[in-house]
Amino acid sequence: MHRIAQFGAGRMGAVHLANAANHPRLEVAWLVDPRPDAGAIASSVGARLGSVEDVLADAAVEGVIVASSTDTHLDLATACLAAGKAVFCEKPLDLDLPRLLAAESDLVTPAAPLYVAFNRRFDPDCRALQARLAAGEIGELESLNIVSHDPAPPPAHFIPTSGGLYRDFTIHDFDLAGWLMPDPIVEVFTWASCLVDPAIAAAGDVDTARTLLRDAKGRLCMISNSRRSGYGFDQRIEAFGSGGMLRGGDLVQDTVQLWREAGAQAAPRYMDFISRYAEAYRGEMDHFAQVLAGTAQPETGYADSVRSLRLAEAARRSLATGAPVRL
Amino acid sequence: MHRIAQFGAGRMGAVHLANAANHPRLEVAWLVDPRPDAGAIASSVGARLGSVEDVLADAAVEGVIVASSTDTHLDLATACLAAGKAVFCEKPLDLDLPRLLAAESDLVTPAAPLYVAFNRRFDPDCRALQARLAAGEIGELESLNIVSHDPAPPPAHFIPTSGGLYRDFTIHDFDLAGWLMPDPIVEVFTWASCLVDPAIAAAGDVDTARTLLRDAKGRLCMISNSRRSGYGFDQRIEAFGSGGMLRGGDLVQDTVQLWREAGAQAAPRYMDFISRYAEAYRGEMDHFAQVLAGTAQPETGYADSVRSLRLAEAARRSLATGAPVRL
Amino acid sequence: MHRIAQFGAGRMGAVHLANAANHPRLEVAWLVDPRPDAGAIASSVGARLGSVEDVLADAAVEGVIVASSTDTHLDLATACLAAGKAVFCEKPLDLDLPRLLAAESDLVTPAAPLYVAFNRRFDPDCRALQARLAAGEIGELESLNIVSHDPAPPPAHFIPTSGGLYRDFTIHDFDLAGWLMPDPIVEVFTWASCLVDPAIAAAGDVDTARTLLRDAKGRLCMISNSRRSGYGFDQRIEAFGSGGMLRGGDLVQDTVQLWREAGAQAAPRYMDFISRYAEAYRGEMDHFAQVLAGTAQPETGYADSVRSLRLAEAARRSLATGAPVRL
Amino acid sequence: MHRIAQFGAGRMGAVHLANAANHPRLEVAWLVDPRPDAGAIASSVGARLGSVEDVLADAAVEGVIVASSTDTHLDLATACLAAGKAVFCEKPLDLDLPRLLAAESDLVTPAAPLYVAFNRRFDPDCRALQARLAAGEIGELESLNIVSHDPAPPPAHFIPTSGGLYRDFTIHDFDLAGWLMPDPIVEVFTWASCLVDPAIAAAGDVDTARTLLRDAKGRLCMISNSRRSGYGFDQRIEAFGSGGMLRGGDLVQDTVQLWREAGAQAAPRYMDFISRYAEAYRGEMDHFAQVLAGTAQPETGYADSVRSLRLAEAARRSLATGAPVRL
Repeated sequence: MHRIAQFGAGRMGAVHLANAANHPRLEVAWLVDPRPDAGAIASSVGARLGSVEDVLADAAVEGVIVASSTDTHLDLATACLAAGKAVFCEKPLDLDLPRLLAAESDLVTPAAPLYVAFNRRFDPDCRALQARLAAGEIGELESLNIVSHDPAPPPAHFIPTSGGLYRDFTIHDFDLAGWLMPDPIVEVFTWASCLVDPAIAAAGDVDTARTLLRDAKGRLCMISNSRRSGYGFDQRIEAFGSGGMLRGGDLVQDTVQLWREAGAQAAPRYMDFISRYAEAYRGEMDHFAQVLAGTAQPETGYADSVRSLRLAEAARRSLATGAPVRL
Repeated sequence: MHRIAQFGAGRMGAVHLANAANHPRLEVAWLVDPRPDAGAIASSVGARLGSVEDVLADAAVEGVIVASSTDTHLDLATACLAAGKAVFCEKPLDLDLPRLLAAESDLVTPAAPLYVAFNRRFDPDCRALQARLAAGEIGELESLNIVSHDPAPPPAHFIPTSGGLYRDFTIHDFDLAGWLMPDPIVEVFTWASCLVDPAIAAAGDVDTARTLLRDAKGRLCMISNSRRSGYGFDQRIEAFGSGGMLRGGDLVQDTVQLWREAGAQAAPRYMDFISRYAEAYRGEMDHFAQVLAGTAQPETGYADSVRSLRLAEAARRSLATGAPVRL
Repeated sequence: MHRIAQFGAGRMGAVHLANAANHPRLEVAWLVDPRPDAGAIASSVGARLGSVEDVLADAAVEGVIVASSTDTHLDLATACLAAGKAVFCEKPLDLDLPRLLAAESDLVTPAAPLYVAFNRRFDPDCRALQARLAAGEIGELESLNIVSHDPAPPPAHFIPTSGGLYRDFTIHDFDLAGWLMPDPIVEVFTWASCLVDPAIAAAGDVDTARTLLRDAKGRLCMISNSRRSGYGFDQRIEAFGSGGMLRGGDLVQDTVQLWREAGAQAAPRYMDFISRYAEAYRGEMDHFAQVLAGTAQPETGYADSVRSLRLAEAARRSLATGAPVRL
Repeated sequence: MHRIAQFGAGRMGAVHLANAANHPRLEVAWLVDPRPDAGAIASSVGARLGSVEDVLADAAVEGVIVASSTDTHLDLATACLAAGKAVFCEKPLDLDLPRLLAAESDLVTPAAPLYVAFNRRFDPDCRALQARLAAGEIGELESLNIVSHDPAPPPAHFIPTSGGLYRDFTIHDFDLAGWLMPDPIVEVFTWASCLVDPAIAAAGDVDTARTLLRDAKGRLCMISNSRRSGYGFDQRIEAFGSGGMLRGGDLVQDTVQLWREAGAQAAPRYMDFISRYAEAYRGEMDHFAQVLAGTAQPETGYADSVRSLRLAEAARRSLATGAPVRL
């Protein structure tokens, strides 16, 4: 059993806490969170409510889950790593590229393993597709179409602190593209509109986008984003290569179909990310357990975080200037 | 060009007439039908309205399409064959097994080619499945599930002259089973109910059935029938073998899907047999043109008609007795 | 937390033990199993190795999982229930109908809740289909086609103690049919062959079957069984009603497709029951936790076990006599 | 019957000639083509071989199919229209935008109907999708993803006279986008590479592209192109709106699936455009017959040709400059 602590018991925190508590080789010793019911939450998983200092001072704590508010991720992760504790950091490590780059000396070869959790990396479909692509099943990759549409936009009050579409939302797709494409991406172009919710425009953001990426060999990637599909999570990948296509992601809740005169009605897609990515979140936690056991290296860490955030910043600049941006 | 004649311009007759008229190597010279507008129908395809005698007397007529009422099929086909004219006979050749058997000497090695049109044989999906099964793609066939449900029951007045479910409807599935299974079928068992339309029961017939066939090697075939699916033509085949399964028939009108919160709505199945089997009917006519040209032998003829009708009679006896019937 | 014990740590036992150990509201206190490594298995989940007597004597044990060999199920379940402990009994409760019927007075209204685990009842697809059928989405049910083909036959040495195809294998489908069809089944007919493995015939059993069920209202059910599909678990349901069809079960391992010249290759079906029914087994355990908490009544118990076993016995008699069997 | 003539009996010419010859209301009187076997081709459909002058001088000719080489389309179409004959012009009307614009006075309100045949407009899936989109099934359209990948690149010698990827290939997608998007497209951006065949690069062209379109309301359209899929025609549309998504085009040759241990193998996509778009070509010819009968106006003509070619030219400029191009 690995003794761990967790910062944050909000929406994502609750998911990670349950997965950690149910994991056969993890034991949550501390929960740190200011909310009134945090004590009750802590006891429900057999943990104590404590402070950042308690966690850092507990030499038996091997790992820490950082699932507190985004603006605290970088400092907490850095402090834990400095204390020799492995870190599971909910994405993003930080929304501010200069700040993230300033942390390079601490984080690029950290004192303990740093794992930044991008959920798609442990989604079974994404993972199977990536493995088969890397195994050469379609020969040489030539281009990539990523669709990533959410069921419904977040509440308008979330937008101002979200980092905006590219840093909050497309960041997953930038991570996917970086993972799936073999060479560094050298150029970014995007167009975006606010078509879904005027409150998003009022907050200075966009909700509908098409973004193009290009790598040094001329491979092309298209990312399709919308904050609102109206039909659940639509997150699909199509990889085109010299020997065919790999595609995945047409995931629905079950296989039941209702056939009536109008045709066949299939089960809906998932409507909330907790059920859509339930298996991915369990996979993330199991990966962290393996990192703690020393049987795995973190699959994603500082370098991936920087890469994705650079792409997001380039997209923001492209949107602002109307021109492609070279990296 | 092959000069042909056609008997009957009813529902099926109209389909065959249009396909014959549009076929690049067929020329319809005569139409024989008593209905008032038969002359107009004949001219619309460049044919003359005539009598059975006209057709038999026209030495240039190479082939005849028999699409008149079912009770006339056998006599007309026999007369045309005796006159040396190839016959395209809409199924069934006859509904009465003793009568059909009595015609054996004329029809088993007829004076001219006799083609009995079972539409499934030229349905592209059935045909592809049969070819791949015969090519050994699933090794040795072990069992077969055939689903054959129509969109809606026929008008009640049709039932009394239809021959009943097994001779009118399941006959297609008996033909399929005989075509797909390599050895002779030796035993038949069936259960049936009238669940769809009480008028069918009032006419002494059933509308919902499950029929089992068994061949000499112990291979099993199940046939699922309903006169009313409520969602269009549901006619599917699943063939299970030592090396896997071949299945086909999940045919819908187009590939368009509508995704909304309740899930994905696919296009409906076909609602009338003319559009469902449009390609099969064209294939039948093209097959007849090849038979006339001497480049093909009839794919189905007297022997297949007898085989299917024997199975239908066995099923009727099984239904009546509640016991399996050996052939 | 509910304190429980488990009998048996074999193949199914291991699945249930892991699910119990990982369940947030269950605590496995005792494991009873004669195998040499049972002590190690027990400690891995924080349990003690003990005897049947230890379990019965431990007043704090609220529930017992009976996952020992089939021939011990009935006696162990009966003893535990008599001791006031709720029972989770892996199916079947017993393979012998007279023995099961003899236990009626103890089990039909047991002293503590008795849950007999039929995995399909907690399979998400079966469950969704059943709920929608019961909710009337296709109107009145008219007929049912159940396909249940396993990836590969069991080792030949398993056959003699298995109870034979109908009691070991089709029993799941009998349970499904009983669950899905609203009225009691009144008649059974079956044909079966040994086409997959001659060793199965040598052991006096069959491996390929088609079974028909009929209820008092004339509704028909067809069950398609094979011990070997060659392509994984193929377990599907089609329910036909007055208002359409509900179908489910076309489950594959993921959504990734590989498109090449020969067509699209979809991911395979599941090859072992542990992964195929992983979610069902977790659902079963969660159901048991709810039964222990008093928030749920066992979904399946003595009556369902008797019903399915009666159908299996009727099918065995039909196979032996070649005739339909009335219940 | 409408008496028509045809210019050109090449690859596309052969398709149109057969469809015209088999059409019940069209009669091909003249074929004009310099190839040695043109006489034989003409007689095979009952037509005479003649010259442009013969056609123009035959007052009974109501319509002309222009399927000769691309560089002759505009002149022949103009001459026929001036002679009062309706024109079915295989796409494109012309590859040169200035030349096309110079013909505006003759063609924008021509003396006889001018129909320019873009095959997607009569593809049943595209047509169904467009109709349902226009009917508001997904509310207000917000964005569009079009995939258009061919099975294999054309022979290298075709590239120099093709007009290049955007005018020869993407032109179909520009036409689709113009048809599906309700407002005029105001801006174009594209990236492209030569990844499939170096001979294409040697000829100064590209084979892999991603193109973005934007309309005045901020709606976005992405077009994915490749000259070689490796798995047949992959031409799909996804339309995202305020009320869901409409998608279509996942068309394969039949519904047969082969299930083996590796998963389910579905039938392949179509490998040649003649079979892929067989129904579309028949639909085009039937549309022309309706135009001749005066029961339909040409669905696409001069204005659509100009619109698509403008988009193609904008894409060419974007590719050359690396910047978006405003229309």
